Amino acid sequence: MGNAVKRLAVLGSTGSIGRQTLEIVRAFSQRFRILALTAGENTGLLAQQISEFRPRFVHYQAGKADTINVDCQLLSPEEMAAHPEVDTVVVATPGSSGLAPMLAAIKAGKDVALANKESLIIAGQIILREAKQNGAKILPIDSEHSAIWQCLEGETKPPSQFILTASGGPFLHYSPAQLEAVTAEQALKHPSWRMGEKVTIDSATLMNKGLEVIEAHWLFDMPYDKIRVLVHPQSIVHSIVEFADGGAKAQLSCPDMRLPIQYALTYPERLPNPELPRLDWNLIGHLDFEEPDLNRFPCLKLAIEAGRKGGSYPAVLSAADEVAVSLFLSGHIKFTAISRLVEQVLEQHQAITQPTLEEIMATDEWAREKAQEFARGYNPC
Amino acid sequence: MGNAVKRLAVLGSTGSIGRQTLEIVRAFSQRFRILALTAGENTGLLAQQISEFRPRFVHYQAGKADTINVDCQLLSPEEMAAHPEVDTVVVATPGSSGLAPMLAAIKAGKDVALANKESLIIAGQIILREAKQNGAKILPIDSEHSAIWQCLEGETKPPSQFILTASGGPFLHYSPAQLEAVTAEQALKHPSWRMGEKVTIDSATLMNKGLEVIEAHWLFDMPYDKIRVLVHPQSIVHSIVEFADGGAKAQLSCPDMRLPIQYALTYPERLPNPELPRLDWNLIGHLDFEEPDLNRFPCLKLAIEAGRKGGSYPAVLSAADEVAVSLFLSGHIKFTAISRLVEQVLEQHQAITQPTLEEIMATDEWAREKAQEFARGYNPC
Repeated sequence: MGNAVKRLAVLGSTGSIGRQTLEIVRAFSQRFRILALTAGENTGLLAQQISEFRPRFVHYQAGKADTINVDCQLLSPEEMAAHPEVDTVVVATPGSSGLAPMLAAIKAGKDVALANKESLIIAGQIILREAKQNGAKILPIDSEHSAIWQCLEGETKPPSQFILTASGGPFLHYSPAQLEAVTAEQALKHPSWRMGEKVTIDSATLMNKGLEVIEAHWLFDMPYDKIRVLVHPQSIVHSIVEFADGGAKAQLSCPDMRLPIQYALTYPERLPNPELPRLDWNLIGHLDFEEPDLNRFPCLKLAIEAGRKGGSYPAVLSAADEVAVSLFLSGHIKFTAISRLVEQVLEQHQAITQPTLEEIMATDEWAREKAQEFARGYNPC
Repeated sequence: MGNAVKRLAVLGSTGSIGRQTLEIVRAFSQRFRILALTAGENTGLLAQQISEFRPRFVHYQAGKADTINVDCQLLSPEEMAAHPEVDTVVVATPGSSGLAPMLAAIKAGKDVALANKESLIIAGQIILREAKQNGAKILPIDSEHSAIWQCLEGETKPPSQFILTASGGPFLHYSPAQLEAVTAEQALKHPSWRMGEKVTIDSATLMNKGLEVIEAHWLFDMPYDKIRVLVHPQSIVHSIVEFADGGAKAQLSCPDMRLPIQYALTYPERLPNPELPRLDWNLIGHLDFEEPDLNRFPCLKLAIEAGRKGGSYPAVLSAADEVAVSLFLSGHIKFTAISRLVEQVLEQHQAITQPTLEEIMATDEWAREKAQEFARGYNPC
């Protein structure tokens, strides 16, 4: 980017990643210009963001318009993502709603700073094909994929293995009986990361790590048998890349999403940012690693299996999980029912090997309905 | 290097690094050609190496000629290092004897794969100036400096800090009284590395880590206040580089010198080598880090201080340490006397700010004599 001002569209600006993206923009106001913002229901915060960053384009959930009084032009997220004046699109909208603007940005050849997991999970093949055809770059914002990206910089040969680290969540050493009794309140207290609700629950079930395995597969064209997961409770080593000669590199930092966000926005530069915490090397003490327990955390296994099977399976996984997490958060199913529900929906799925976008969306809808249907037979917690 | 054959001079081929260098050459015999070998007293092994690798040039200690019967041409290490047909010079000779051939290679604009610590310690300023003038590259073979080098690859901005890891040696948690009673036999048993005797003792006193701080200063043009040392007993993280944004990268591998040797020889490529051990990520368990105790391991402090003072101080440090280690190994002084002896010699030194090579050699000689003289007043162990 040199020192030119980078013009950003931040989709999902009132969510956790969106807000942290704006913190980075604030810290480097000479380098970035916010051209577009989108939000869901939190129009109060969006109004504040609009008044601070003065975007030209906005989008928010219908019916909430009356709370916002601004001179911005209303555009759909897809229109913003493809707008000729936008350089980089930050896709931080949750769930499958990130897919359409993500694809619009990619078709327009934009750099996409990607925090939305679901789009790559459900449509990785289509996205990667379009990105290649249109010269669009996908810059990961997830800390694990950012770590892999950083470790790959300067390397000339394909890596031999990725080791994705997982915090293990708040219930790492819970017994099956303890897991059965976990409440939403407990599950929302993540030991090391501050994140949105969906991803916090996915971290507690390790579904999040399974989704990240699928993402890593697509982002770095890495076969599944060369991606493994290690639990690392301190969340300081964000991932490890092993190379052909047996040497490996790891990326380390405090668990703070602003670092990978900043890296994606300023790449290939690294800029000093006094707002970002630094590791205190005196206090590191020890970094622990252990194998994940797939029996107590079956979501990880389900996700990797769905990834390996490919086709429409990951879309089913993602949609069923979204419903299951939402049902858990609203107290309708138990924590341990999340994996059971996802598994049940996956088992019923009639696979499509190379689904079109339309087939993916239909699969998504089918899986959501199926999950709701199965869940009616579950005991609430 | 592409796929062209790289022609090597291996200086010190019968020592630990020299032998491991030849293991790498053996593993990639299509990529390397041994053009020159030098040894000290171990002419038996040199003869075997000559018969296997068929170098054109050799050198060995005078008086041992009768044990070698070959068609090689005798050249001095300096002549080999500067020979027009040599591409890369591996400097693996111990002590200050590495300096003259190192300088000859650099003046001839060669790539120098450097395992010899002392030359950079005693003449860093001169070496770096000559390397710049002659376009010679210094490729570190030490695992710590190789780690830093690997972590810097692909980075566009100067790093903000180096964290050199130290195994802590076999006596990491010994009390002062226990350290007093350490024998040469105990000190030669390093918990994680197989190395030559001098460097093994230097690892046990942490002098080795202090020397590496000085090396890192010269190799990467890094101020001393941005280089710190952390004890890491597992010797898996070989060093860490912290960047402007607060993120850091670490290099990890089994403690095996063949990896950094191979990296230096095949750079920028990484080649698969089934002979090299791979980390078993299941078994990593935990990686520990602690601050070094400068009271129990004063050599580390002495070395960093000598580095900071610069000029002729590091040459005094290095020479006095060589004498002290040798006196300890032969049972003439105690383990804890090594640091006392080095400190005493440093205290007596009349500093030269920008020493010439001749002044460095004279300082080296003075420090050796002074160390011998002081040691006569010490109690043997």
